[in-house]
Amino acid sequence: MQFNLADAVNLLGRTPVVLREMLLGIPAAWATQNEGPETWSPFDVIGHLIHGEETDWIPRAKHILEVGATQPFAAFDRFAQFEASQGKTLEELLNRFAELRAESLRTLQELNVQPDDLAKTGTHPALGQVTLEQLLATWVTHDQAHVVQISRTLARQYQEAVGPWRAYLSVLK
Amino acid sequence: MQFNLADAVNLLGRTPVVLREMLLGIPAAWATQNEGPETWSPFDVIGHLIHGEETDWIPRAKHILEVGATQPFAAFDRFAQFEASQGKTLEELLNRFAELRAESLRTLQELNVQPDDLAKTGTHPALGQVTLEQLLATWVTHDQAHVVQISRTLARQYQEAVGPWRAYLSVLK
Repeated sequence: MQFNLADAVNLLGRTPVVLREMLLGIPAAWATQNEGPETWSPFDVIGHLIHGEETDWIPRAKHILEVGATQPFAAFDRFAQFEASQGKTLEELLNRFAELRAESLRTLQELNVQPDDLAKTGTHPALGQVTLEQLLATWVTHDQAHVVQISRTLARQYQEAVGPWRAYLSVLK
Repeated sequence: MQFNLADAVNLLGRTPVVLREMLLGIPAAWATQNEGPETWSPFDVIGHLIHGEETDWIPRAKHILEVGATQPFAAFDRFAQFEASQGKTLEELLNRFAELRAESLRTLQELNVQPDDLAKTGTHPALGQVTLEQLLATWVTHDQAHVVQISRTLARQYQEAVGPWRAYLSVLK
């Protein structure tokens, strides 16, 4: 599908509410279970999404529009949440993510991105040249990827409990 | 994780709201795109969940409690939604699913399932002997599996638009 800014904003605005409905008030163990070693729990994922709002999406969009491609983006820390989320409750993280996402979308509106701007480029520290359009499409896709991860992690908690039905549930494989 | 009836009800009650927040008011093309031939769009999935409420979960739970294992469950039609959803809007399907799920959970409450009941058995037409506990765990897991499917389908709409970031997005593979 073609990228469309209004569609992207429509999708990005939903994510905090979707995650709140999925997770707020869930039995505590479900929020902190992961899929095994080196995998993330729903709690970990919300911290990661918070870090993305703080350091990735809008900062990089501004970088493209204000600095350009000569200077690469700062690298993104995929593990920052393990320290940053310590001592916080799931509700605090969900609230913080919702605030930051609303702020990100307000800033995006203020940046007043025009069709021509979408082709402007930045330099990713590992991937090289990328466009503003690619960054914004990735923001949308990254949200959905983490909704996938959270719902898959929830699904897998009952991988034994489902018994013979496991054969029909490809999500458990 | 051990199956727990209260946890299962907590999770099952969320799904209609999660799906509404994910999909109601989404740009129309996003609701009807699938992942390629023989795959389902979000619209298709909601129809499938409706059919599950009507013919699968509670009817089979009642079958276990009231008929037992001597007579197998009726087979479930995995393709019923392609006819049943015709001419309906996404909003109608989301509303119908929410009504049916609320009704299912009211019926489950009325069935007043006791710990001993969870070990009672039924006969699945293909899988053979299954317990009420396995049926209820599968209901929970099946919901999450379809949230995975919908969010993965949404993610994949921008598989080209993300450009070089595709390398980092395992959901696109």
